[in-house]
Amino acid sequence: MIKAGIIGATGYAGAELVRLLWQHPSAEIAWLGSRSYAGQKYSDVYRNMTGLADGECLPDNIDEMAEQVDVIFTATPQGLCASLINEDILKKTKIIDLSADFRLKDVSVYEKWYGITHAAPQYIPEAVYGLCEINREKIRNTRILANPGCYTTCSILTLYPLVKEKLIDPSTIIIDAKSGTSGAGRGAKTQNLFCEVNENMKAYGVATHRHTPEIEEQLGYAAGEQILLSFTPHLVPMNRGILATAYAKLLPGTDSAAVEKAYRKYYEKEYFIRLLGEGACPETRWVEGSNFTDIGWKLDQRTGRIIAMGAIDNLVKGAAGQAVQNMNIMFGLEENTGLKLVPVFP
Amino acid sequence: MIKAGIIGATGYAGAELVRLLWQHPSAEIAWLGSRSYAGQKYSDVYRNMTGLADGECLPDNIDEMAEQVDVIFTATPQGLCASLINEDILKKTKIIDLSADFRLKDVSVYEKWYGITHAAPQYIPEAVYGLCEINREKIRNTRILANPGCYTTCSILTLYPLVKEKLIDPSTIIIDAKSGTSGAGRGAKTQNLFCEVNENMKAYGVATHRHTPEIEEQLGYAAGEQILLSFTPHLVPMNRGILATAYAKLLPGTDSAAVEKAYRKYYEKEYFIRLLGEGACPETRWVEGSNFTDIGWKLDQRTGRIIAMGAIDNLVKGAAGQAVQNMNIMFGLEENTGLKLVPVFP
Amino acid sequence: MIKAGIIGATGYAGAELVRLLWQHPSAEIAWLGSRSYAGQKYSDVYRNMTGLADGECLPDNIDEMAEQVDVIFTATPQGLCASLINEDILKKTKIIDLSADFRLKDVSVYEKWYGITHAAPQYIPEAVYGLCEINREKIRNTRILANPGCYTTCSILTLYPLVKEKLIDPSTIIIDAKSGTSGAGRGAKTQNLFCEVNENMKAYGVATHRHTPEIEEQLGYAAGEQILLSFTPHLVPMNRGILATAYAKLLPGTDSAAVEKAYRKYYEKEYFIRLLGEGACPETRWVEGSNFTDIGWKLDQRTGRIIAMGAIDNLVKGAAGQAVQNMNIMFGLEENTGLKLVPVFP
Amino acid sequence: MIKAGIIGATGYAGAELVRLLWQHPSAEIAWLGSRSYAGQKYSDVYRNMTGLADGECLPDNIDEMAEQVDVIFTATPQGLCASLINEDILKKTKIIDLSADFRLKDVSVYEKWYGITHAAPQYIPEAVYGLCEINREKIRNTRILANPGCYTTCSILTLYPLVKEKLIDPSTIIIDAKSGTSGAGRGAKTQNLFCEVNENMKAYGVATHRHTPEIEEQLGYAAGEQILLSFTPHLVPMNRGILATAYAKLLPGTDSAAVEKAYRKYYEKEYFIRLLGEGACPETRWVEGSNFTDIGWKLDQRTGRIIAMGAIDNLVKGAAGQAVQNMNIMFGLEENTGLKLVPVFP
Repeated sequence: MIKAGIIGATGYAGAELVRLLWQHPSAEIAWLGSRSYAGQKYSDVYRNMTGLADGECLPDNIDEMAEQVDVIFTATPQGLCASLINEDILKKTKIIDLSADFRLKDVSVYEKWYGITHAAPQYIPEAVYGLCEINREKIRNTRILANPGCYTTCSILTLYPLVKEKLIDPSTIIIDAKSGTSGAGRGAKTQNLFCEVNENMKAYGVATHRHTPEIEEQLGYAAGEQILLSFTPHLVPMNRGILATAYAKLLPGTDSAAVEKAYRKYYEKEYFIRLLGEGACPETRWVEGSNFTDIGWKLDQRTGRIIAMGAIDNLVKGAAGQAVQNMNIMFGLEENTGLKLVPVFP
Repeated sequence: MIKAGIIGATGYAGAELVRLLWQHPSAEIAWLGSRSYAGQKYSDVYRNMTGLADGECLPDNIDEMAEQVDVIFTATPQGLCASLINEDILKKTKIIDLSADFRLKDVSVYEKWYGITHAAPQYIPEAVYGLCEINREKIRNTRILANPGCYTTCSILTLYPLVKEKLIDPSTIIIDAKSGTSGAGRGAKTQNLFCEVNENMKAYGVATHRHTPEIEEQLGYAAGEQILLSFTPHLVPMNRGILATAYAKLLPGTDSAAVEKAYRKYYEKEYFIRLLGEGACPETRWVEGSNFTDIGWKLDQRTGRIIAMGAIDNLVKGAAGQAVQNMNIMFGLEENTGLKLVPVFP
Repeated sequence: MIKAGIIGATGYAGAELVRLLWQHPSAEIAWLGSRSYAGQKYSDVYRNMTGLADGECLPDNIDEMAEQVDVIFTATPQGLCASLINEDILKKTKIIDLSADFRLKDVSVYEKWYGITHAAPQYIPEAVYGLCEINREKIRNTRILANPGCYTTCSILTLYPLVKEKLIDPSTIIIDAKSGTSGAGRGAKTQNLFCEVNENMKAYGVATHRHTPEIEEQLGYAAGEQILLSFTPHLVPMNRGILATAYAKLLPGTDSAAVEKAYRKYYEKEYFIRLLGEGACPETRWVEGSNFTDIGWKLDQRTGRIIAMGAIDNLVKGAAGQAVQNMNIMFGLEENTGLKLVPVFP
Repeated sequence: MIKAGIIGATGYAGAELVRLLWQHPSAEIAWLGSRSYAGQKYSDVYRNMTGLADGECLPDNIDEMAEQVDVIFTATPQGLCASLINEDILKKTKIIDLSADFRLKDVSVYEKWYGITHAAPQYIPEAVYGLCEINREKIRNTRILANPGCYTTCSILTLYPLVKEKLIDPSTIIIDAKSGTSGAGRGAKTQNLFCEVNENMKAYGVATHRHTPEIEEQLGYAAGEQILLSFTPHLVPMNRGILATAYAKLLPGTDSAAVEKAYRKYYEKEYFIRLLGEGACPETRWVEGSNFTDIGWKLDQRTGRIIAMGAIDNLVKGAAGQAVQNMNIMFGLEENTGLKLVPVFP
């Protein structure tokens, strides 16, 4: 039985970790960390867990946690994980960081886009970017797992085969992404009130969103060259779900068969990726509550572009689900253990 | 392994049965029946099931089903189940009927409220009303299980201990219930379009809703006398969830302790009922996707009334979840097998 | 041209006042007061007003306001209006208070339910309760107008003719009310975040909501006796709208004709009340954005009860619209001036 | 007083026409046409109009209408308007067609994208494309006004100055648009049920949506050359609103000042266009219920692209509002007569 600790268990991603780990047959939650609610019953904060996780929220004592648990999930704001880890902790436990601290290999890019000084850059080289379907082998043996961002996961998985197989021109990539509101977190902000979000659609962080360099870095590895792309996130009046609509120019000679072949090459055997095929449009409702990524695409002969679309649940494959998937890999379990959740509809 | 067949697998309740049975460790779906979509891939109708339930929808051939399966779930309009069953079928398989055909013991009440002639009244006496927490013993050995209505389940469970223990005056019961829109079914009706339901709140079926006699009959058994009550359903712009707000006059001498004691007496050991206690208000979000019933209440000294509140997921405890719970009982399994679903929030 | 000042112009009710007064042919906004946003452009806070109300938010200087305006609307938390007014101000300007400060005639009831000491009880006797359709004559000449609460307006208008004409037993009144989330205000509270409210239904303030004594007092005047009733508010995942579902025992001899006659007697000539008749269920969508109150009802012979239902837009008839309607009366204008807004659907 | 007739008054666009014309000081509705609801009271279909538009729905007798009205609005499926008009009718009345029948100048493009034979191609040359801010002069004297599509209006207005002033490369234009569900119409289709749309985000009509050639044609006129572009519509779980996020490569030398200057040149004096400036993101909530178009943009130096964003209410500026604006121009009224509606928020 894997003993898991969570720092930040009362944010939305943290709460989703609690939901998933509670149902996991080979893991148990040994530490429910929450700075804001320390001392309160967890199920008083998240009443869906009444009778299931009635333990008390604990403060963020990472040294004590390291003694007690096999893996620590940090579902916390940027900068916290980097400020907490050290050699002593890493000798005792593994870290799965849901923040951005160890996602970018170039610390200067991190510091520029996030506007903070990285507190533990010495650990960046060994950290592994935990996009399971692509980095599976490296994930097995790491101590520090950088769990990808939600927009990032959806965007990269949607475009990876096209970039890797050189079917599109990377300089023409535009990703127009739409997210449910849980992605904005549980902080009490006026802009996230029901009446402000409901019956509304808007873009935000245009040309400045922090997931941009993360997408560029990972797709750059696939392309074997540096990539600059446009990424625009939008806020949608729904709880969960990310839809990424990606556009790119097809390279000469790319036809439907080549695209289909590329997607199949990388994803056909993946449990958590469902290829819907050309002409099919993924919808967030069909993955809600699950760890699936649904992908569809359409070649447009008129404009010479492909429109590739991916859909995930931002809290599952975009956060807690992928974190558990990474845990499974890191601890030698079947990758879908505890994650065979059927999407909930309606 | 229990082999299960579903008639009406492409309605919302039927689809929820598919979701639950797919995850069930001791059952498998052997027949996906759908008159409307016969011949189509199930996962083309419900794309959440892509890769999970890709079989073809089959027509409603109950004779053939009876040969192949151990239990048939009928998630169909009123009247269909009664028109299909006969001795031959009941000898081969068990029936769990999610429609109202076998819920009311008095066939004239059924025919009056539903406006149809009952096609198989001879089976009414042996059918068992499948409110698990109350009729558990009778459920074990029945061939015909009448799965309760969604409003009914929520209303009865909320009021049962108060009526049974004679803490309230049954003649003063008023139930004001609110339901998510999945309760209206998947039929293509203008009144259920997104723009008609969204940003709206309304009552419907005032003083005429068909769940009324079902609630009255069951609470009447608890009271040991006939009960007439007011029941008003409302449509809420959300997918899932029923909230029942019930009002009644406290009988002389009823105090907080007596109420708490009554609720504990009947529900303390129930896995699927969570007593939130006096002063707590259940919310549908905390049970969404799960088989739980959350109950809270408040005594109002000023008016001498109690306000008792219950919340369920109408598609789970209000339909498919309770149906599976009944199946578990009927087949001698642990009652929560396959049903330890954690509520999904947000 | 009536010069109007608003204190609290950046709350939801205040913003609705801005919307209505901007469109009013005989009034103009001379003071946009907002403590929180003083110094900012109003249209930077409420961007729907871009190009329409681009003036700066001003601090709450009521003395200065009194010099400049003919009427001050206070759309502020309880206690503020009472703490600001004095004889000097009342000599210069009229006050329309959207808070509860002057709604209850018995100051001890106010202090008990609101938990604060009333700062200006000497003005309570002269203040007029501004439920226009009922108190029209008294409203004409008052200096202090107590604008009714949102739940209150809907509840009282729904039940008034039945109580006044003695068709129901007041001791049996139960009001189950449902409100859109704008009623919870624009404060940055976790419980009002999109993901907390969306896909959820709950009761709150059970047996303790502050609108209860206000409803009891006003219906008590109609009945000619003290009334105690049950009032339960619920939060609905929609922006606007209140639906009140009210239950009461019919007094002997009350039939459909008597009920219809009573409603017609009081409301037939009212521009803002639309009687839908027996059997019709009002819906919030049909009044959204307008100052209408839609009323329907149903007599239930089985239980001897009436179910009376009313729907309003909580920000219009339940707050800003009624405030403007009161202004129109107080300044001798046609009552529906600037208020002939057609409900917006969908 | 302009006498107006509406064919298709019970669709969402038709109902919005009724709302707007009812409030219009210089127009009156003389014919409420609805094939589906002929003989029923209009306010029984749209109960927001109770007491306001209680007249009976009439069949589509265009000959009789032409005798009685000054202008006929056709808010009907493609093909109907073209099949109805003739010289006799056009001599008696003006036509404002909200369908696509007269929007495209090349009849073969129409027939290809819409898949129907045009019944009256002889009238295409004289029909004027009614994008008011751009074609104002031509609109004044036409008999046949082709009211633009909703996506089209938003997309063209957002990009027009950039194309016209040659600041972007038209071959790189990608428009990712998001629409509220009222755009899908009031037909009873399963895919538009509340539970199917709610909590979901999807693209549809990828690379094949019929508004594409309309956008290309109009922007082509502005560019002075043929344009092919990518247009992807998405369905959003909200009632109203369109957000268009448009991407294009900046031409060499285009800087922020040039972009701002271009937008100001064409729109600074337009009542219905609100320029939010660089860095501002328009949101649909700020225009809901109004005829405004809000526009913002962002230059991205990293990628050499501009992201231009526009927001409208699809039923107002995207349909009925623009139709009334066109009527105002055609009848010599102030362009914003009856259209000074303040956006309703929240």
